[in-house]
Amino acid sequence: MKRKVCVEGSRTDVQVPFSEIGLSGGEPSLRLYDTSGPGSDPEVGLAALRQSWIWERGDVESVPAQGSANAGRTVLRAKAGRTVTQLGYARAGVVTPEMEFAAIREGLEPEIVRGEIAAGRAILPNNINHPESEPMLIGERFLVKINANIGTSAVSSSIAEEVDKLTWACKWGADTVMDLSAGKHIHQTREGIVRNSPVPIGTVPLYQALEKVDGDPQQLSWEVYRDTVIEQAEQGVDYMTVHAGVLLRHVPLAADRVTGIVSRGGSIMAAWSLARHEENFLYTRFRALCEIFAAYDIAFSLGDGLRPGSIADANDAAQFAELRTQGELTKIAWEYDVQVMNEGPGHVPMHKIKENVDKQKEWCANAPFYTLGPLTTDIAPAYDHITSAIGAAMIAMFGTAMLCYVTPKEHLGLPNRDDVKAGVIAYKIAAHAADLAKGHPGAQAWDDALSKARFDFRWEDQFGLALDPDTARSYHDETLPASPAKTAHFCSMCGPKFCSMKISHELKDLTAEGMRRKSWSSSKPAPKCTCLSTDLGQAATSRQRGALV
Amino acid sequence: MKRKVCVEGSRTDVQVPFSEIGLSGGEPSLRLYDTSGPGSDPEVGLAALRQSWIWERGDVESVPAQGSANAGRTVLRAKAGRTVTQLGYARAGVVTPEMEFAAIREGLEPEIVRGEIAAGRAILPNNINHPESEPMLIGERFLVKINANIGTSAVSSSIAEEVDKLTWACKWGADTVMDLSAGKHIHQTREGIVRNSPVPIGTVPLYQALEKVDGDPQQLSWEVYRDTVIEQAEQGVDYMTVHAGVLLRHVPLAADRVTGIVSRGGSIMAAWSLARHEENFLYTRFRALCEIFAAYDIAFSLGDGLRPGSIADANDAAQFAELRTQGELTKIAWEYDVQVMNEGPGHVPMHKIKENVDKQKEWCANAPFYTLGPLTTDIAPAYDHITSAIGAAMIAMFGTAMLCYVTPKEHLGLPNRDDVKAGVIAYKIAAHAADLAKGHPGAQAWDDALSKARFDFRWEDQFGLALDPDTARSYHDETLPASPAKTAHFCSMCGPKFCSMKISHELKDLTAEGMRRKSWSSSKPAPKCTCLSTDLGQAATSRQRGALV
Repeated sequence: MKRKVCVEGSRTDVQVPFSEIGLSGGEPSLRLYDTSGPGSDPEVGLAALRQSWIWERGDVESVPAQGSANAGRTVLRAKAGRTVTQLGYARAGVVTPEMEFAAIREGLEPEIVRGEIAAGRAILPNNINHPESEPMLIGERFLVKINANIGTSAVSSSIAEEVDKLTWACKWGADTVMDLSAGKHIHQTREGIVRNSPVPIGTVPLYQALEKVDGDPQQLSWEVYRDTVIEQAEQGVDYMTVHAGVLLRHVPLAADRVTGIVSRGGSIMAAWSLARHEENFLYTRFRALCEIFAAYDIAFSLGDGLRPGSIADANDAAQFAELRTQGELTKIAWEYDVQVMNEGPGHVPMHKIKENVDKQKEWCANAPFYTLGPLTTDIAPAYDHITSAIGAAMIAMFGTAMLCYVTPKEHLGLPNRDDVKAGVIAYKIAAHAADLAKGHPGAQAWDDALSKARFDFRWEDQFGLALDPDTARSYHDETLPASPAKTAHFCSMCGPKFCSMKISHELKDLTAEGMRRKSWSSSKPAPKCTCLSTDLGQAATSRQRGALV
Repeated sequence: MKRKVCVEGSRTDVQVPFSEIGLSGGEPSLRLYDTSGPGSDPEVGLAALRQSWIWERGDVESVPAQGSANAGRTVLRAKAGRTVTQLGYARAGVVTPEMEFAAIREGLEPEIVRGEIAAGRAILPNNINHPESEPMLIGERFLVKINANIGTSAVSSSIAEEVDKLTWACKWGADTVMDLSAGKHIHQTREGIVRNSPVPIGTVPLYQALEKVDGDPQQLSWEVYRDTVIEQAEQGVDYMTVHAGVLLRHVPLAADRVTGIVSRGGSIMAAWSLARHEENFLYTRFRALCEIFAAYDIAFSLGDGLRPGSIADANDAAQFAELRTQGELTKIAWEYDVQVMNEGPGHVPMHKIKENVDKQKEWCANAPFYTLGPLTTDIAPAYDHITSAIGAAMIAMFGTAMLCYVTPKEHLGLPNRDDVKAGVIAYKIAAHAADLAKGHPGAQAWDDALSKARFDFRWEDQFGLALDPDTARSYHDETLPASPAKTAHFCSMCGPKFCSMKISHELKDLTAEGMRRKSWSSSKPAPKCTCLSTDLGQAATSRQRGALV
């Protein structure tokens, strides 16, 4: 049924994994993009897939870690004066093994990948200290990606649980994972996650920085923040959300909102700026940050700290003021060859979704857009994976490159394992629906394979091709558990007599029969129409059969 | 918290029910559209709400039932030469109590309702033999409605279960319910459903007609079908799906599809027509059907027997050929003052959704559109409530008046109680998201009330306003079950230190503080900024506070 296969690139150490779904009935097997990784023992972590590619370029060195939490550890860093980002390589005309790997995953030519990265329209997040991750692309031209947020909060969860959620999220299709841990053991939790993650890991360094100053935004400083970024850079975080677009002058724009500032990072920086009447240090020190990011190939995920948290606040002045600043910062990052994407909303009614993408493309010069949903209504807490899957599918159709999932627990509590799966599945649906709408080459092959299996009553193939085979099978078996039902030409929804697909098969035979007869000379005897006499009943007379078209 | 209230119309017997959600914190209560009905004892059924309105017009008479299954029963029927449809009244300039009731539900003037019905742009389905139902509207100008399908299949379910599903579906917001029962006891199941339903009931009479001929399509005849329609008309079915648009010449257009004909009714009629080489009797006898429908005020739901059953088959020649015929039939029905809506797909990728609405409006002269989803991808059996909620929200935004729900069991089995709820909730989300996008007056008040409660940490109000209060509460309580958590200014998702809404409140105070101080003369002493020193920490010095804006 399902097995992992690898496609080799131009060199033997480029081995790109796919899921291959074997089918019955003489159908060719189907290869699907695979995020699950090679599997790891959490105590040991994953193998360093990209290590040799990183070293062979000769632009990194092994140095003692600077971050105090990494004391005694040796980490990679760009040699002085060297830029080790995929954007830098792409601009220099180099197709890296990382790019080739990602191109094979997408079924595209490596040169297309290089071109999209060089133009800033796509990113390939992969910190040189996270050699375990499998290269992937975030960009409008590629398959729509999804991110799953995990992480401990101050009141819930443990490290082992979070590593388990990581593996679980990747199994179901998460393309990247953000570790949003707060509370105790942030460093150790992240260590467990990065070492076991086959996908790029994102963080919001501000959360840990705030923990370091005991949760008091007033004690935050550039120095504490910078040290936190370096600590995380050395661990291997691949992209970081930086709320550098929340400027002092933007904050009053959010004062009269129904839900104020709903981004944690945004509200923390607004509190810092406002109380001190100083400009956001993430903005004033942005070039220093770029230098750090360039040394490890960390990508910016420019945070939208003023994103709307309710339908009422969508597309307002605060949100768009920040988006303009995100555009300004995008271009600065590119000066340093640092990869960038832009975060977007939030809560947006359907008719206001397209404007978000249009403005982001214009103001941020087509850098990849990475949105949280958006939720298309506020009325359904406990179902925000659905309220937001609607918005996510639409915004991705318009050009958003990556969708940050929302789980059923949004607004209510920390997602558990089941919630993570529910969020990932809802977002894989949204992303794939957008791939279809965008006409991504090959996207529809999956739908066609499943629909063909459905029409042929190949139940096992239908389950195997389903986004979630386990649940599809269990739902089917709830009413028809017996093994013969797996080959039956109906299910319990309509029962045997009313199965349109069964009747439709008989129709197909009938139509073909009519066509065939038409093309024969009239002297030949009409063949017996077996399907009519057996399945559709005995009523048709010979005369009627003769008249069949 | 939640209670039922009634708004009286221009006469005392027009009592329109709403759910009123009482809120705390001095907030005004919110009234919501209510589909749950007055509640009934299944053994007794509901009271005959509309009985006096029906009689007082003097155009109906009580006659012995014709349908053999209704033997001995007295039913209502239009007097000879009289038309008893809401379309007839609307065209005659009469605002019926039914129209006024429905107008109050929608928060609109009754004359607007009359005008929309008269123009054929809306229907008010209410068979004179189903006086228990509460009048409602299906039309683009009104709130988007949702239908829930229930019904026994040949292999599963019982009458009591189906009546329970009906009540359950209405509790969660189903605006109409279709009884798609097949197998044994169809008549009795429908009797239980109609007598207990506060919402209009739809059926596909062909299913029962087929049972009457032992499931053999060849044995079907206009006579068997007509008698079935009359039997159901006398029981009180409010709208009927009629697959009259599946013409003989359309069938070959579907022969090469990936999934053929996926409508049960469509495949049955195609089989009948093709095998006999006779035109679909639903088409050839359509005017006779109109006469029956007019005598009871049954609305047509013109079936889309050739709707696509896979992404590959969307918007194809077969589908659109039938849609043109639906348009032709719509105008014929209007000749008889019979109300009509048109059924639509099915499986459609996002970028092809709008074309469906545009063509339906043009070809069917703006009659209400009633679509099944559409599912925006085929790859997620067990999650088709989500794949289709995406398409449903979009198609409703473009103008579809009613959405037929899809449950997680779609393609896999008969939905149980949990599936019915999951389907209804997903579709209430889609419908409401569309109401917002269409700017339906009053729709956003619900979102705003919930978001305001969220921002104010009024947890009980948040649960009370949620589409599904039970699940929202249980998700919250999973991690923070204690009673104090219901007033806490955070949840387990972010914990107390990271709650952006909490910080945002403090910011609001800070901003207001800054503004106030700015407008004061500099001689006045600066007031102590309590929020800064308590909540945002002790770090800010007096100098910093003084600089606050």
